[in-house]
Amino acid sequence: MNPNQYVAIMAGGVGSRFWPASLEEKPKQFLDIMGTGESLLQMTFNRFKTIIPLENIFIVTNADYVGHIHDQLPELKAHQILAEPSRNNTAPCIAYMALKLNKLNPNAVFAVAPSDHLISKPKVFIQTIEKAFDFCSTHDALMTLGIMPTYPNTGYGYIQYNEHHAVSEGIYKVDAFKEKPDLEKAKTFLSAGNYLWNGGIFVWSVKKLLESFEKNAPDILAVLEEGNAVYNTSAEQNFIDTFYPTTPNISIDYAIMEKAHNIYTIPCDCGWSDLGTWASLFMESEKDNNNNVIQGNRIYVSETTNSIIRVPKNKKVVVHGLDDFIIVDENDILLIYPKSKEQEIKNISQKVNKDDE
Amino acid sequence: MNPNQYVAIMAGGVGSRFWPASLEEKPKQFLDIMGTGESLLQMTFNRFKTIIPLENIFIVTNADYVGHIHDQLPELKAHQILAEPSRNNTAPCIAYMALKLNKLNPNAVFAVAPSDHLISKPKVFIQTIEKAFDFCSTHDALMTLGIMPTYPNTGYGYIQYNEHHAVSEGIYKVDAFKEKPDLEKAKTFLSAGNYLWNGGIFVWSVKKLLESFEKNAPDILAVLEEGNAVYNTSAEQNFIDTFYPTTPNISIDYAIMEKAHNIYTIPCDCGWSDLGTWASLFMESEKDNNNNVIQGNRIYVSETTNSIIRVPKNKKVVVHGLDDFIIVDENDILLIYPKSKEQEIKNISQKVNKDDE
Repeated sequence: MNPNQYVAIMAGGVGSRFWPASLEEKPKQFLDIMGTGESLLQMTFNRFKTIIPLENIFIVTNADYVGHIHDQLPELKAHQILAEPSRNNTAPCIAYMALKLNKLNPNAVFAVAPSDHLISKPKVFIQTIEKAFDFCSTHDALMTLGIMPTYPNTGYGYIQYNEHHAVSEGIYKVDAFKEKPDLEKAKTFLSAGNYLWNGGIFVWSVKKLLESFEKNAPDILAVLEEGNAVYNTSAEQNFIDTFYPTTPNISIDYAIMEKAHNIYTIPCDCGWSDLGTWASLFMESEKDNNNNVIQGNRIYVSETTNSIIRVPKNKKVVVHGLDDFIIVDENDILLIYPKSKEQEIKNISQKVNKDDE
Repeated sequence: MNPNQYVAIMAGGVGSRFWPASLEEKPKQFLDIMGTGESLLQMTFNRFKTIIPLENIFIVTNADYVGHIHDQLPELKAHQILAEPSRNNTAPCIAYMALKLNKLNPNAVFAVAPSDHLISKPKVFIQTIEKAFDFCSTHDALMTLGIMPTYPNTGYGYIQYNEHHAVSEGIYKVDAFKEKPDLEKAKTFLSAGNYLWNGGIFVWSVKKLLESFEKNAPDILAVLEEGNAVYNTSAEQNFIDTFYPTTPNISIDYAIMEKAHNIYTIPCDCGWSDLGTWASLFMESEKDNNNNVIQGNRIYVSETTNSIIRVPKNKKVVVHGLDDFIIVDENDILLIYPKSKEQEIKNISQKVNKDDE
């Protein structure tokens, strides 16, 4: 493995979806949401471990979640877990990572990836990441992976690229980023053919990324460069706890990607899903003969179709006569709700939580 | 209170109904099946406690359940709990009780009552029991309470009585016992007007009951009279453990009631239900505005009607869009089943139990 290659896995999200499975104290990335025995974080970690040296894998998370990371990834040393004292969005947290790496290895190239997405074709994904590493090691390039869209989703941002002019095999210049479109616009994107989903997965060299921060978001660097003397020392956390919360709250997309002119993409068909809703989990999961997703070992289902049933492993469940339902028993909460109305669940979870106070 | 009045509450039943709330190790009589905070056994005990001296209340149960009785009725002394080593139906167990009482108090009159029935009008019930005590103290009579039928139930036995000839106010001679009828026959019973449901609630004097056993079921007495020397002593349990299992397995109805000629009844409108099924629990319970029975403190129901929801007190439950369902979460088993198909639950519970083995 190339010792200059690193990854920062972003595991600080609160994840208000997947209630009642996901709670603020243990959000989605820490759950075995697919029922495979591994959390999404563990799946993400294991994907990168195939190409990146263990000591080069870093997890960026909120201070509250450090315990979950240690529990789920015992191979990692404490210094590989970056604990943010506040939620300031992705730009400050990526700048922090870049400055640390710059001190460790100025020749580093690194990937940034969310911890809570699903990749059903990990080989394709890893090949794409390796291609991005190679390109970013030798070019003035900030790379964002482009997910090949399969339907006109209105919940994602889109990447517009010049499909007629590859700068290298399978690598294209990005023309523009597009905000979440309405359905009509999303349909035109899909038929145009040169739009990709923006999955928030990036690859860049430390050097080119810091140059771009210097040019496009100097206010963030101004705060965090003050820590250069203490990064990778025992004084780092104290500095971060004091000064990190004073950085601007801004996403990497606004701070860098939409301003910079050296943005490239690799269109990638890696079976990506952001697993944003119970319905998307249903879509991505294996079904039984009646098109049900069954997560649990002792579930007796009859005359039941198109439903998700997720309960603790050894809980016995008998279900009869439901169609298109979400049934989840987790965290001492039982949810029985029509899948077609899942957008209502968020309000209900807030009501239930409020009554807890 | 009259020191000659006793009650034997029968609490040995296995109760295969109300799965998954009821399990063989803790059957129906020990459950707070109505969601009132009291088990059916405790409700039965408390009813009789209003007219019978505490020391005259006995519980007849299977040896396996003695712990549950102590837990639920801590007022009782150990000798008030009769522990049967085997299930030999009601006749041996009532004979055993009668022989014990005969030694304690030859002038005793006693009631026999199941522990797992519901009585929604306890005052009417208690007045009826007192009337029966009075009558049986002074007459050659074995009394069975007759529940005034409210619909042509095909699951109960019926008592035919001579409604034109009261032997005392509200007390009638029984003409015949009728087995569970088919629907057509049940309808003729109801329109005839002189048929009552046989609820298995009896009152008699020890003296007249033992005379009837002597005449109609001498084989049972032959075994149990051998214990006369040890009843109400520390040697009693040892005798019972050895010889009780050798008594014939037969109900009091077959052994005594259908043979004897001194059987009387008091028609009684006491809101009785044997709570034989989830649907009968539904019928007997208070409903919310959408005709749901809700047992639990944190249940959020919407667009849901005619359903029973029973979960642990502090479990949070969100249910939407169900009609006519049974939802029970108990004993680490979750049941979601149409109420109209509840007769299928027994087979399913057997399958689930079998898979446990």
